Amino acid sequence: MKIVIDDATSLKDAVDTIVNLVEEGLFEFTNEGVRLKAMDPSQISMISFFMPKEVFSSYGLDEERKIGIDVDKLSKVLARGMKGDSAELGLEEGRFKITFSGAKKKRVFKLPLIDVGSGLEREPKIEYKNYIKMDSEAFKEVLKDAKLVSSHIRLILEDGRFRVEIKGDEGEVKEEFEKDSGEVKELHVHEGARATFPLQYLEDIVKASKGGSQITIHLETDRPLKVEYDVVGAKSVYYLAPRIEST
Amino acid sequence: MKIVIDDATSLKDAVDTIVNLVEEGLFEFTNEGVRLKAMDPSQISMISFFMPKEVFSSYGLDEERKIGIDVDKLSKVLARGMKGDSAELGLEEGRFKITFSGAKKKRVFKLPLIDVGSGLEREPKIEYKNYIKMDSEAFKEVLKDAKLVSSHIRLILEDGRFRVEIKGDEGEVKEEFEKDSGEVKELHVHEGARATFPLQYLEDIVKASKGGSQITIHLETDRPLKVEYDVVGAKSVYYLAPRIEST
Amino acid sequence: MKIVIDDATSLKDAVDTIVNLVEEGLFEFTNEGVRLKAMDPSQISMISFFMPKEVFSSYGLDEERKIGIDVDKLSKVLARGMKGDSAELGLEEGRFKITFSGAKKKRVFKLPLIDVGSGLEREPKIEYKNYIKMDSEAFKEVLKDAKLVSSHIRLILEDGRFRVEIKGDEGEVKEEFEKDSGEVKELHVHEGARATFPLQYLEDIVKASKGGSQITIHLETDRPLKVEYDVVGAKSVYYLAPRIEST
Repeated sequence: MKIVIDDATSLKDAVDTIVNLVEEGLFEFTNEGVRLKAMDPSQISMISFFMPKEVFSSYGLDEERKIGIDVDKLSKVLARGMKGDSAELGLEEGRFKITFSGAKKKRVFKLPLIDVGSGLEREPKIEYKNYIKMDSEAFKEVLKDAKLVSSHIRLILEDGRFRVEIKGDEGEVKEEFEKDSGEVKELHVHEGARATFPLQYLEDIVKASKGGSQITIHLETDRPLKVEYDVVGAKSVYYLAPRIEST
Repeated sequence: MKIVIDDATSLKDAVDTIVNLVEEGLFEFTNEGVRLKAMDPSQISMISFFMPKEVFSSYGLDEERKIGIDVDKLSKVLARGMKGDSAELGLEEGRFKITFSGAKKKRVFKLPLIDVGSGLEREPKIEYKNYIKMDSEAFKEVLKDAKLVSSHIRLILEDGRFRVEIKGDEGEVKEEFEKDSGEVKELHVHEGARATFPLQYLEDIVKASKGGSQITIHLETDRPLKVEYDVVGAKSVYYLAPRIEST
Repeated sequence: MKIVIDDATSLKDAVDTIVNLVEEGLFEFTNEGVRLKAMDPSQISMISFFMPKEVFSSYGLDEERKIGIDVDKLSKVLARGMKGDSAELGLEEGRFKITFSGAKKKRVFKLPLIDVGSGLEREPKIEYKNYIKMDSEAFKEVLKDAKLVSSHIRLILEDGRFRVEIKGDEGEVKEEFEKDSGEVKELHVHEGARATFPLQYLEDIVKASKGGSQITIHLETDRPLKVEYDVVGAKSVYYLAPRIEST
């Protein structure tokens, strides 16, 4: 196995879409690219990650492989990739090998493989009929507002607009985004939908999205939220369980 | 009640002259403007705050009102005001309502009202005869120097100069400002005065003054210190009890 | 005693080569300049510091003196020297006096003298035959890489190159610097040498070296490491005990 990416720092950006949710992960190196599915330890959220082989400058695979890695450790190692370094991924003596090659020198890191279960997590089978595609930064700002008064946030997709409501002991917040505002790129509403989600998980989910990029939020009433975005050619899809209000 | 300020961030700057000293406060919305008097929980320092109605772009008041608010929470909400947002203050369903309006969207925060006593704090009746008006930054630097060796600072106004002396187990510091140095704007000395004050409170008092602005320090021997400065048109006056040396 | 340096901030930079290793030190003000030898509290590393009198703009000494000072406190006081300030060192009433003089005002700090033993630490008598002179920044980056996987680092000087190996439970790192790479200024190898050192001490030793400067590393197999570099005309020499592997 010998997989090379020209820009080591972009690999770090891609892995960071995983590390905010899970500490350990089973990376599947398939003929199409690198895949990972994992649930966070509390089983409230899930990530389905895919980095197609086209993103790599070289993608040599003798056979498909599943490799368990400490994602947090991997992220820290990848953070040591300098601008201008390429990164090569491989296996050596039962270890995951990352080689940074820059103009001046090579640096080799080897990480132990770890046992992380089957990786058979299945994505929820839900037909999503409502979604909004919007600036990731604008959504992150909403979460910062929300955090001031509560630990949960209610998302509402209605005809022509996206609303959020946050109510807590310490106050409440209301915001809305009109379809034609600059921050909303697409808004598709079938029958409308609303559901409430834990703020901290939402923050972790969108944290790795880049400034100036978009995220897509799929919402069905009282069903898991689905959030999608791309980072350097890798596609990350997240699911987050709603809080069922006892009304 | 409907009070609007064009620049939401300036309201945050004004409220920050309060928040470093007190956590809760009774804001009085009067026909002249917004007033607040409060002592810090340890009763060592006091703030008298006034923001005249002229600072607001609209100041509509059906009747004068006293509103108890968690100042710390208010400051955090105001910190969410973006550059270019206006801020509208009002009351709705027994809550204090802050509405930020920007080019793209409105955001509404509501904070619970709290019970914070009468607000009948009275300012010390002292005839101050000595004062110095100086760069706030220069005074802040003095406090940083002082902090290295003690928790108290002695301020001395003499003919033609302002001196500080700090003595502690870990060393001592002496500094002086001549009347004609660039950092001193005005210096008025009647008979001279000296007193010692707790450093931490002084730091909290001057913290919200802006770089490039001036503060006025009124000093009488072994009497409370009076410090005044303006932030975005709001006037903050502080009193701080001296430490009476047992000589 | 009246010793003056034109640029107060450079004195801070020089003292910072000491403060990362020792908290207290006996400064010897001799006719040649200022000297200090000290071991860190764990006796694993040692610093020999010398700042020649030529670095000072005025160096008046009535007699040679040894002055025990809390180096940490001294560093914090020197950090209060502003750009453009000169610093004058002296003794007054049994205290170490630092006077910062700027365009606008004088500031006087006095620190208590402390008792810190004889200062008779002797430098190891080792004939060093292998050394590398390299960019300090490049070496600091190596230490950051190493820190990800272990608390120790193995340094290896071989014919024509400098190698590092780090092995820990959490992974391993290998790097090498060729003689002709831009980062290596000089490389002198007699028979070759290798030894293992505690990472944290190495970090503390090189921390105060300036970006863009060089450090010289002397290495003998399983003997103390010797590291040298200059900061603002002061010369700092460090020794660090190796970890003897039980093979």
